[in-house]
Amino acid sequence: MTDLNSTKKLAVVLASGGMDSCVTTAIASKDYNLAMLHLNYGQRTESRELKAFHDLSDFFSAKYKLVLDTDFFRRVGGSSLTDSRIEVSKADLRAKEIPTSYVPFRNANILSMAVSWAEVLGAKKIFIGAVEEDSSGYPDCRKIFYEKFNELIAFGTKPESNIMIETPLISMKKVEIIKKGIELGAPFHLTWSCYQSENLACGVCDSCAFRLRGFQMARIDDPIPYKIKPNYL
Amino acid sequence: MTDLNSTKKLAVVLASGGMDSCVTTAIASKDYNLAMLHLNYGQRTESRELKAFHDLSDFFSAKYKLVLDTDFFRRVGGSSLTDSRIEVSKADLRAKEIPTSYVPFRNANILSMAVSWAEVLGAKKIFIGAVEEDSSGYPDCRKIFYEKFNELIAFGTKPESNIMIETPLISMKKVEIIKKGIELGAPFHLTWSCYQSENLACGVCDSCAFRLRGFQMARIDDPIPYKIKPNYL
Repeated sequence: MTDLNSTKKLAVVLASGGMDSCVTTAIASKDYNLAMLHLNYGQRTESRELKAFHDLSDFFSAKYKLVLDTDFFRRVGGSSLTDSRIEVSKADLRAKEIPTSYVPFRNANILSMAVSWAEVLGAKKIFIGAVEEDSSGYPDCRKIFYEKFNELIAFGTKPESNIMIETPLISMKKVEIIKKGIELGAPFHLTWSCYQSENLACGVCDSCAFRLRGFQMARIDDPIPYKIKPNYL
Repeated sequence: MTDLNSTKKLAVVLASGGMDSCVTTAIASKDYNLAMLHLNYGQRTESRELKAFHDLSDFFSAKYKLVLDTDFFRRVGGSSLTDSRIEVSKADLRAKEIPTSYVPFRNANILSMAVSWAEVLGAKKIFIGAVEEDSSGYPDCRKIFYEKFNELIAFGTKPESNIMIETPLISMKKVEIIKKGIELGAPFHLTWSCYQSENLACGVCDSCAFRLRGFQMARIDDPIPYKIKPNYL
């Protein structure tokens, strides 16, 4: 028997452990061997997200796995995700202002790490489950930001590296992502999205609200446990 | 008496503790209050560089000081600066290949951190002592890379942040930087540049070679102690 995996090229996948990174990993795994990358940066639900990351890496038989710890975001502060003195915003799905969970330039920091690792491994692709629609106004979650980042990579790495960021979900709505995940057999039961708590998802933070609304629109039951499940339709 | 410093705006200065960051800090301090940023990333001469950073911050009366520790570059590997299994290249000032001391995409990682901190502090400028001429072929030390990075910042931060990277030395030769530093009273005796050792500078690594040649061309005695001082003219 031929090992099909041995002929696949390598891709780095940035995985928080949430549902978007789960579907992104499912998409990447069709064509690539996986180098899974996760960041502990002092987020409130750090250990629950880390468990989800390991569960996803096992499920998709990742070839490499790297968990990085950084206290950078906590030390720099300025965000309720990492600074316990700032209250987490209640979800407002129509809000136009940048919410308090914004960590300044977070995605640039994370992508830069992924590029460094990709260049060492010789991986040509970096997958990230960024979604513009539910980016809560974070400037560094928009499609244009990733396009600009790809230009930067071309100027900041060795000419032969040819590394590109791939954002397969960037223009999708949550409900479409869920349907795509179901189609690909993505293990949603292993994921974690809540910003607020680690045992039962709170159901009311931005991240829970976007997720629950997506599952409700898809008429599919979200398999993870919630404290409360408001109707977001 | 008026405190002139209170009317100055704030700038983040990335300072390794080497002679280029010393002169850059001297330039920034003419017009800005200083937020000094240093990174320990597992470089061989980490503690000597850190001492130089603190000495420079004190000399220039920095308003803020932030030292970040990251094991990221060491864990990602791929460079003799952080990986003790790879031998440090002997200096070859005419070499066209990228030397083994290259940490992939290092400056993108460092700049991203600086941007996050600048956005939290409300600083509009980030100074870095990058020099294209003696960049040893690192793709992310070139002028074009910083221009691209400024474009990225505009797309990845809040619209009102208006953060720009400043590279006052980018087109200067080492000898010009030294003359500029002398003109501004920059404290070269507090700096450290050697990649290889912490007590006496080795005199033969890339960094020592570029530095010594610059001082020799300027006909000025480099005030730090060396193991050997080859003639690079």
